[in-house]
Amino acid sequence: MPNIVHRVGMENVTPERVYWAVSTKEGFASWWTVKSNGRVTEGDIFVFTFADDSAGTAFEVLELMPGKRTAFKCVGGPQEWIDTHLEFEIRAEGGETILMFKHCGWREEGEFMHHCSTQWGYFLIGLKEFLEGGEGHPYGGNFQPISSWSK
Amino acid sequence: MPNIVHRVGMENVTPERVYWAVSTKEGFASWWTVKSNGRVTEGDIFVFTFADDSAGTAFEVLELMPGKRTAFKCVGGPQEWIDTHLEFEIRAEGGETILMFKHCGWREEGEFMHHCSTQWGYFLIGLKEFLEGGEGHPYGGNFQPISSWSK
Repeated sequence: MPNIVHRVGMENVTPERVYWAVSTKEGFASWWTVKSNGRVTEGDIFVFTFADDSAGTAFEVLELMPGKRTAFKCVGGPQEWIDTHLEFEIRAEGGETILMFKHCGWREEGEFMHHCSTQWGYFLIGLKEFLEGGEGHPYGGNFQPISSWSK
Repeated sequence: MPNIVHRVGMENVTPERVYWAVSTKEGFASWWTVKSNGRVTEGDIFVFTFADDSAGTAFEVLELMPGKRTAFKCVGGPQEWIDTHLEFEIRAEGGETILMFKHCGWREEGEFMHHCSTQWGYFLIGLKEFLEGGEGHPYGGNFQPISSWSK
């Protein structure tokens, strides 16, 4: 099954701070989407609201390893996302903190996957910029669409 | 074999203008890398110079379909890139011009592929911004690294 993969590196940012960004609603709001409900605790479900998707996109929290890793499973939202997993891996190396990202388990390498890959890159670069002292560009915040599909 | 895929959509930009950006050295310089040598004609080879990679990264031009598609094969540069293909597909749809991108034929989904995926997203968003009247952020120009690997 095809995967979306990404990697950013941050200077003067601790693994704990990156973990905060990928494991809390406040963290998500800084780079991903400003609106979410639910709880980011293992076994629980949190829900993001994008655009006019009134039902939102729901994720089950599979794994929370402080400072190291988080994993979520999509359980509601776009059909193509259902049962796909998001994985965030964090480590310190050579003066940087590295964040590796994977959105895995796509059924096909279709046009929506192409779009989501670029959109993830956009968000993750915002995560880096925010944690390094600049601004993120989360959905619902300082966001610029990459195509009409982002609106 | 795993692939990197991306998609951006541009308003008030013709397919011909997107084709210019993905088929000429002047176009490449607006979003990808400012320094290149060689000729972008079918069967010829052009070479990009990144960072201290003094030998550069070389691409054979496989296909040039004006307004529609370009394809290149990497024939020199990072070991992981050798024999991989870049494909750019252009079409007009619903008031936008869509650019689909694929960097295909990676031998493995390793850390360098993760990095390159985010880097391509960064460059392609710059291509969109440039063609819509803003600024691109090509290597050698207005470029911000996504990690120490970009420097």
